[in-house]
Amino acid sequence: MREFEADPSHPRYHSLWLRHKLELAQHAGMLANSAMIAHGRGEAFDYLLGEKTTDSARHATKIAAAKLQDATKPIICLNGNTTALAADTMLQIAEHLQCPIEINIFYRTNERMKALINYLSERKEELGLGVEILGDSPDYSIPGLKGPRASCCWNGIGESDVVFVPLEDGDRCEALRKMGKFVIVVDLNPLSRSAQKASLTIIDEITRVGNNLLEFVNSPIELEDYQNELFIEGALSHIARRFL
Amino acid sequence: MREFEADPSHPRYHSLWLRHKLELAQHAGMLANSAMIAHGRGEAFDYLLGEKTTDSARHATKIAAAKLQDATKPIICLNGNTTALAADTMLQIAEHLQCPIEINIFYRTNERMKALINYLSERKEELGLGVEILGDSPDYSIPGLKGPRASCCWNGIGESDVVFVPLEDGDRCEALRKMGKFVIVVDLNPLSRSAQKASLTIIDEITRVGNNLLEFVNSPIELEDYQNELFIEGALSHIARRFL
Repeated sequence: MREFEADPSHPRYHSLWLRHKLELAQHAGMLANSAMIAHGRGEAFDYLLGEKTTDSARHATKIAAAKLQDATKPIICLNGNTTALAADTMLQIAEHLQCPIEINIFYRTNERMKALINYLSERKEELGLGVEILGDSPDYSIPGLKGPRASCCWNGIGESDVVFVPLEDGDRCEALRKMGKFVIVVDLNPLSRSAQKASLTIIDEITRVGNNLLEFVNSPIELEDYQNELFIEGALSHIARRFL
Repeated sequence: MREFEADPSHPRYHSLWLRHKLELAQHAGMLANSAMIAHGRGEAFDYLLGEKTTDSARHATKIAAAKLQDATKPIICLNGNTTALAADTMLQIAEHLQCPIEINIFYRTNERMKALINYLSERKEELGLGVEILGDSPDYSIPGLKGPRASCCWNGIGESDVVFVPLEDGDRCEALRKMGKFVIVVDLNPLSRSAQKASLTIIDEITRVGNNLLEFVNSPIELEDYQNELFIEGALSHIARRFL
């Protein structure tokens, strides 16, 4: 694996650093074939957003923090790309919320699950945290989904009331909603089915969301009313301005 | 390498087929690390374009055909992704134009150059074409660029007057313009530097452009005046409509 050599003053430093983390994760067998393509799609939308957290996304993240704090059984559900890019922050958020993390991937293979759980456990040890990591023994199926993508843990996703599930697939987002859960999605494409179907949609890049969410969960946040369509419209009009 | 198994009636069949071709190319050592991410960025913009050739892009492609037919020394310059996705069409276009193809990559290594030239030569044999394939013995440098990315062949890019160079880097596009060449770029991002700097910009997906261009170069096309800004604005307003 080549070393990461970019200069921190390079305007694309953060973007190159994220790519490097994904390359390491790919090398460690944590990612599906489609992971890099998915990341590229995200890069394009982030470019259109101006590679900054919009006020609207920050507001959505604050509400997400309140919802997670207020939940009876919150769960943080991580796929390959989120684990590769934001494992440390997600572990710290879970520690604050005293909730488990469930590794749950769409293209499930035992090898990938093992690589992801190993990596997350290593990061947890390194940070000295006590977060419970679920995913290696799925004992429940998300109703309405077929095949390995339905598998999950009952004491994780299964009995949760609020699910924080970044970079989620549209079908699964819909299936989780149908189970009556409050589904918080992070997605860079405001037009994606997950973005449209979630209970709360954060249109922002996952490492920025992680940092903001960690800041918010540090202190108690009051729940407030919101309209999710406004978060989506906020992102759409922000992007549209780039093209006009 | 896994088999390609998608159903041709699947709405994402073409997109999945392109990904599969890239995976094969990656397996054969033809692609840089960043190739999949670049493809994902393209997918995002193509999604915003509606995954169809716009009238404006078709018009730009027709003018590209006329310019290539009218050129004294046209050259088709292919990188890794274009070779992986559109080798056959590009070879057929070169045969019609009686021009060489130069393999020219941004992250140049001998291994990748060899893998690309081998693949293109195999496709040429298979199709029974007589196209000259350049790139393995660069003997010229594009002025203003540093390192291996400046390398090219004098009897290819070097002495050409019209360069068809899909998925090009912004710096190289600019350097080729400074050499006085007419540079035709294919790019899905109308805001990219290559799109903005080219003499003629086709905002469309490379396999669709290949098919359209092959159709156009089949018969003589009359040169017409055009304003490249209008092709870029056409794509921008087409995309903006998706966000409004």
